[in-house]
Amino acid sequence: MDVGFIGLGGMGSAMASRLIAAGHRVLVWNRSPAAAEKLRAEGAEVVANPADAFQADAVLTMLASDEVIEELIIAPGLLKGARPGLIHLVTATISVDFAKTLEKLHAEAGVAYVGAPVLGRPDVAAKGELNVLAAGKPDNIARVKPLLDAIGKATWVVGTEPHLANVAKLAANFTLVSAIETMAEAFAFCERQNVAPEKIAEILTGTLFAAPAYKTYSAAILERKFEAGFKLALGLKDVRLMLAASEKAGAPLPFASVVRDNFVDAIAHGEGDKDWSAVSRVAFRRANLAND
Amino acid sequence: MDVGFIGLGGMGSAMASRLIAAGHRVLVWNRSPAAAEKLRAEGAEVVANPADAFQADAVLTMLASDEVIEELIIAPGLLKGARPGLIHLVTATISVDFAKTLEKLHAEAGVAYVGAPVLGRPDVAAKGELNVLAAGKPDNIARVKPLLDAIGKATWVVGTEPHLANVAKLAANFTLVSAIETMAEAFAFCERQNVAPEKIAEILTGTLFAAPAYKTYSAAILERKFEAGFKLALGLKDVRLMLAASEKAGAPLPFASVVRDNFVDAIAHGEGDKDWSAVSRVAFRRANLAND
Amino acid sequence: MDVGFIGLGGMGSAMASRLIAAGHRVLVWNRSPAAAEKLRAEGAEVVANPADAFQADAVLTMLASDEVIEELIIAPGLLKGARPGLIHLVTATISVDFAKTLEKLHAEAGVAYVGAPVLGRPDVAAKGELNVLAAGKPDNIARVKPLLDAIGKATWVVGTEPHLANVAKLAANFTLVSAIETMAEAFAFCERQNVAPEKIAEILTGTLFAAPAYKTYSAAILERKFEAGFKLALGLKDVRLMLAASEKAGAPLPFASVVRDNFVDAIAHGEGDKDWSAVSRVAFRRANLAND
Amino acid sequence: MDVGFIGLGGMGSAMASRLIAAGHRVLVWNRSPAAAEKLRAEGAEVVANPADAFQADAVLTMLASDEVIEELIIAPGLLKGARPGLIHLVTATISVDFAKTLEKLHAEAGVAYVGAPVLGRPDVAAKGELNVLAAGKPDNIARVKPLLDAIGKATWVVGTEPHLANVAKLAANFTLVSAIETMAEAFAFCERQNVAPEKIAEILTGTLFAAPAYKTYSAAILERKFEAGFKLALGLKDVRLMLAASEKAGAPLPFASVVRDNFVDAIAHGEGDKDWSAVSRVAFRRANLAND
Repeated sequence: MDVGFIGLGGMGSAMASRLIAAGHRVLVWNRSPAAAEKLRAEGAEVVANPADAFQADAVLTMLASDEVIEELIIAPGLLKGARPGLIHLVTATISVDFAKTLEKLHAEAGVAYVGAPVLGRPDVAAKGELNVLAAGKPDNIARVKPLLDAIGKATWVVGTEPHLANVAKLAANFTLVSAIETMAEAFAFCERQNVAPEKIAEILTGTLFAAPAYKTYSAAILERKFEAGFKLALGLKDVRLMLAASEKAGAPLPFASVVRDNFVDAIAHGEGDKDWSAVSRVAFRRANLAND
Repeated sequence: MDVGFIGLGGMGSAMASRLIAAGHRVLVWNRSPAAAEKLRAEGAEVVANPADAFQADAVLTMLASDEVIEELIIAPGLLKGARPGLIHLVTATISVDFAKTLEKLHAEAGVAYVGAPVLGRPDVAAKGELNVLAAGKPDNIARVKPLLDAIGKATWVVGTEPHLANVAKLAANFTLVSAIETMAEAFAFCERQNVAPEKIAEILTGTLFAAPAYKTYSAAILERKFEAGFKLALGLKDVRLMLAASEKAGAPLPFASVVRDNFVDAIAHGEGDKDWSAVSRVAFRRANLAND
Repeated sequence: MDVGFIGLGGMGSAMASRLIAAGHRVLVWNRSPAAAEKLRAEGAEVVANPADAFQADAVLTMLASDEVIEELIIAPGLLKGARPGLIHLVTATISVDFAKTLEKLHAEAGVAYVGAPVLGRPDVAAKGELNVLAAGKPDNIARVKPLLDAIGKATWVVGTEPHLANVAKLAANFTLVSAIETMAEAFAFCERQNVAPEKIAEILTGTLFAAPAYKTYSAAILERKFEAGFKLALGLKDVRLMLAASEKAGAPLPFASVVRDNFVDAIAHGEGDKDWSAVSRVAFRRANLAND
Repeated sequence: MDVGFIGLGGMGSAMASRLIAAGHRVLVWNRSPAAAEKLRAEGAEVVANPADAFQADAVLTMLASDEVIEELIIAPGLLKGARPGLIHLVTATISVDFAKTLEKLHAEAGVAYVGAPVLGRPDVAAKGELNVLAAGKPDNIARVKPLLDAIGKATWVVGTEPHLANVAKLAANFTLVSAIETMAEAFAFCERQNVAPEKIAEILTGTLFAAPAYKTYSAAILERKFEAGFKLALGLKDVRLMLAASEKAGAPLPFASVVRDNFVDAIAHGEGDKDWSAVSRVAFRRANLAND
């Protein structure tokens, strides 16, 4: 297939790379051109404008926020200028509200729209092992199946309205960040009582919590390996999106509220550019434990 | 070995049963005799007094609380009357403070003491697949190894002071109850937004949260299967022990605080005798969702 | 003075009325004209367009949100068309961020800007007894002093940058809504233990809490008088603004987070159009107490 | 009247002093005798044993906790040895549960019992301006009215069962500590945004929050005057009693839960011996503000 790709940060570059490797013709565009040039070496065609990426069978956008999508895709009228028959896959974590707006705008422009946010970090994306949460008309999802297969090891179809994929993505991120906070509190609790956090991590991940989320993040927290896989400041954006959706939906999220305050605390202490698991430092700091 | 066993509730009976099956001579006692009689059929010797169970190589006690241990074991002087060389394994979830008191009392009475709380519910205990969190002098743990092997599939040695096993147990239960609360909030969040909670549970347990805790409890929560494996009112006791230890230790536990209030809410709504995963109803009720 | 007034809801109408009574020439505009007509009877001049209200010595705007100000004032270019020398007083509760944007826009258009949010509800406004939180250049505040005196019993100057008045207003509303939540929890706590909430309210307001906030709101909560003085759904908007400012500022606000979840709960239970003190029903409902 | 007084800490000494000044014959006892000797100079009779203080018309006890009352009054059998007709006034903050136990024990011993916890700190007690929260049989309260009048400026009768006074006292302390936390968060929020906390304190205490609680504690927080009027570690005890009562009563107290974690945080940072308003440092520290 001919596939456009807009937004070549860590995640986007890795995903585009997988599409190239799968044999698709990939038209890439990025605001800062260096990332695009790197993909040219792998076989991508670098296009001059985002609009050019919409002249394909499908286009994936991996842009940081509602605002950037508005600015780069919506405001310049890319939907109206899209090649007939194109399917737009929005793979970033955006607000549920904005996803609903996008549903309307795509319908008006006659452009097919699939919500396809992903679970996984850049290293996972590089291996093509993301989990894709997809929502959209079954036909549309079927048509882009080869693309989803190229970027992920599994596609989980959540529903027929694209915004439902964003609901699921926020729920998954909520679960993840709550697990991080839980570990942070548990580890500080243990350390203050002379039980090595490493021991409790070993027990948990060896028994009831033998799952990737706990294995990956307990190691990060205990080794203080906070090089950003997913920046804490962006993590706070996600928490904000959860809370905004919770408000609209009428579902309190007290754990997300606790986490929000801890992200604010972490950022006030200069940790916004670290990995979001650095929010664990808050629990350690509040227990007056050494934090390095 | 000759093994005493005091406290034959759901957990205790299953554990005693495993000890019998492993070929030990097991001397059982329970406040209400019916449970003891059932084990007699399996080969246990029913003793007339708790003191008799202390005339063995080792004795396991699985009693509901600090208070019951005080009443049945400490106040009547069972430690002082214990057979020389006996090792006492305290397998229930007790407070860290009381475990420290027990350390002192055992030392004074010259009785060996091993903290050995377990992870798992009665059905897991019946299969001998508990995880045992053990703490005590290495010699003592070595001597009771055959007993630990009979009741559990793994023994995790946490430290040399028995109370450390209780710290670890509270940390594990904290992690578990936080996972339950997380799922409850996430499911209510999804349901209010027309994403089937079953779908998000499938995604989570198929990806980052492919772990027993999430599989078991997402099913319980979504099928409203709240027949008590572990009573909610007892769960609140455990949360109280976490918070008490957190206070003593100087480690805030904001997630445990949120959970505490939800347990109080659940009990006020008549759910104290259900399984502790019924605390999930609080999130559904607060989101004004159907709850049956 | 010649004074424009845009936004004639309950608060705006009462404030405009006070300006008329103080002898100013008042040019009013409202989206739905009925409210303007009522003020005509009191002596106001009804203008056809918001722009006309900007042809005065000063203009007060009391509009519901950032968005409405953007739509009615900024987008149509009213600042650029304002009469030279006009001072714009923004009296509504807006976000700190938007207030900063307004500072820039006013500076660019050469229009003087005073932040002047108010404390008090429509009945207080009708008596001219509001407390005005003002921020702006001292000269500007001095020039509009007669207007501030007409609408309020006191003006509290917070700083020289207009947005600081909005920070103060959010802090005041935070304090107020935290007091409401505190009373709700305390009353439910007492009622479940057979102490009449009326008695504890009497004690508090007769001793350490002998203050208008506690007197007004304890009565509202206990008599379930929830006719909207300030709609709960708008209250949630204010809580959202607090949390947004808290994020930007780097100051966690855990009490606001608890309150947020309770507002979401209240709205899910159909209480969005009641007075914001109806958030107290959440504490009663969670304690399984009768709520009518 | 002949009045016994047991427990001569800061509060107890001041209250006993007022009883002497009112012309009563006061029999004092304290564990460390220095405090008793100081009152001898004012006219008190120092008795050798707590039991002697129970040989009077009434006895007030101001002891630090349930445990101390159990140890000094209950265990030694002072109730059974009390002079016939004596009324026992328990003026400390004790748990609701223990107050119920005391009701039973007094009834069994035939000793009249009045719950009479007080609002106010030592300096207020010294002026006889406490607020007394009283509960007990009307006859009993009537008989000790002269004593209540001597120590307080007002007596608030909460009910006929003594423990109800303790419920009310915990509700009052909950309200107070929630106000302190509210101010701490509001001040940190303001300071991070360049609004002087002193200014917002002035506004609040000049308008909706013109009440002693806000005046006293905003000054303490902003001037960092944390010489202990009421020790933070004792404050945590009170919060624990609130939460324990909340559990028994079935009334969630989310604000108390937030406060609890902040007290734990404060104590972990060495602030347990300061005044409980030093819990405000937590909000400042979490916002990364200077804290001295």
